[in-house]
Amino acid sequence: MPTTSPRQRPARRRPRPVGVDTLERLKRLIGEGRYQPGSALPAERELAATLGVSRPSLREALRMLAALGAIETRHGSGTRVSATSAGVLRASFEFLLLLDRPTIDDLLDARGLIEGHLATRAAMLRDDDDLAALNDTAAIMHANAIGSRAGIEANRRFHQTIAAAARSTVLERFMACLDDGIRACIESGAATANTATSHAAHDAILAAITAGDADAARVAVAEHMRLSGINAGSARTRPVKRSR
Amino acid sequence: MPTTSPRQRPARRRPRPVGVDTLERLKRLIGEGRYQPGSALPAERELAATLGVSRPSLREALRMLAALGAIETRHGSGTRVSATSAGVLRASFEFLLLLDRPTIDDLLDARGLIEGHLATRAAMLRDDDDLAALNDTAAIMHANAIGSRAGIEANRRFHQTIAAAARSTVLERFMACLDDGIRACIESGAATANTATSHAAHDAILAAITAGDADAARVAVAEHMRLSGINAGSARTRPVKRSR
Repeated sequence: MPTTSPRQRPARRRPRPVGVDTLERLKRLIGEGRYQPGSALPAERELAATLGVSRPSLREALRMLAALGAIETRHGSGTRVSATSAGVLRASFEFLLLLDRPTIDDLLDARGLIEGHLATRAAMLRDDDDLAALNDTAAIMHANAIGSRAGIEANRRFHQTIAAAARSTVLERFMACLDDGIRACIESGAATANTATSHAAHDAILAAITAGDADAARVAVAEHMRLSGINAGSARTRPVKRSR
Repeated sequence: MPTTSPRQRPARRRPRPVGVDTLERLKRLIGEGRYQPGSALPAERELAATLGVSRPSLREALRMLAALGAIETRHGSGTRVSATSAGVLRASFEFLLLLDRPTIDDLLDARGLIEGHLATRAAMLRDDDDLAALNDTAAIMHANAIGSRAGIEANRRFHQTIAAAARSTVLERFMACLDDGIRACIESGAATANTATSHAAHDAILAAITAGDADAARVAVAEHMRLSGINAGSARTRPVKRSR
């Protein structure tokens, strides 16, 4: 496959760097299913030959994909296409926070809407495994202070499990981005999270999902977001500056 | 500013490429407000000196930022930080479609939820300028077939105007990504959009927003998404493969 020659595009004063075209072509091959999500990419020499580019150009494109979170390089196991878009959206959501500087109220409003919908679906679609995972993380939350490392991790897992139980990939990804952004924002502000209040909020969500009560699940999430807004304290009125 | 030496991190066999560290530092400077969204970056020589990196490293980091959509280079006017995250999220949402392959029903569900909320807010918050812009684009839609170039463009602008009237940056960005993905999906499937039905759907949304009727706005968006689902035809049951 020959690369596009800059001479074919006289209107352009500078040709696009080769790495960018290589990136577009790699993207196309992933889109066509040649390189599946989660699968290993061929060795550099082979991949460069397939794309008809030099190895430095290929490496540049691979570094761009890695910066985007679209591929993962692990020592020993080579380079893989990311299994999901989770890392890709996280990297770019960080730029959303930097460039758009939404308020914490904007973030909480978006998260309340999306997680309310996910909890509603989870109440209808959850299976025994989802309920077991939710109960496990709820137990870990109860055994730890809300601001402790274990408490924070269990909290995050609780919300992720609800999102996964809703079987809606796109909204699950959006929710994860919003969760990261809000947490960073609350941590950087005057956070005054109260363990008992937080447990009560999570228990209400879990009870609604366990009962299969879709409306109660939505209401419980809205109440949780309202409390998060209060906990955000002074972060509430000023724009978010950075995601961490 | 010295760069971190690989010797300080013995656990790592290969140090991160310099371009990636440079990218992180540029991100930090944008986050700290040193380089504002929409403003010009300093000349390459100056920026390389500020960051204490070589010009090739800087160029690599700038190419990564350009691939992400976080900076824009125009001939004659140099390199600017992007004014908004719109391009950043679009680039990564394309990867979401490639890696997660959500169904069109998933995309329509997410869009219905988010645009329903935006239309509700728009009905409450719209000012005279918003209404004028909505009426203008509605008039262009009525004067053109729904599948024509002018019709497609007016349709897109109509939905963007509703999102902007809702004054919610984060959800506006999510909506734009979903809009792109769904359009591409419908175009690649057996689209059977009907001009009269489409006009009626848009008119109902416009009437609700004009009347300031938040509930009617949400219902009208849900009905529009239901019709889009039908128009998506065969694309409905198979996963989305590519965004264009």
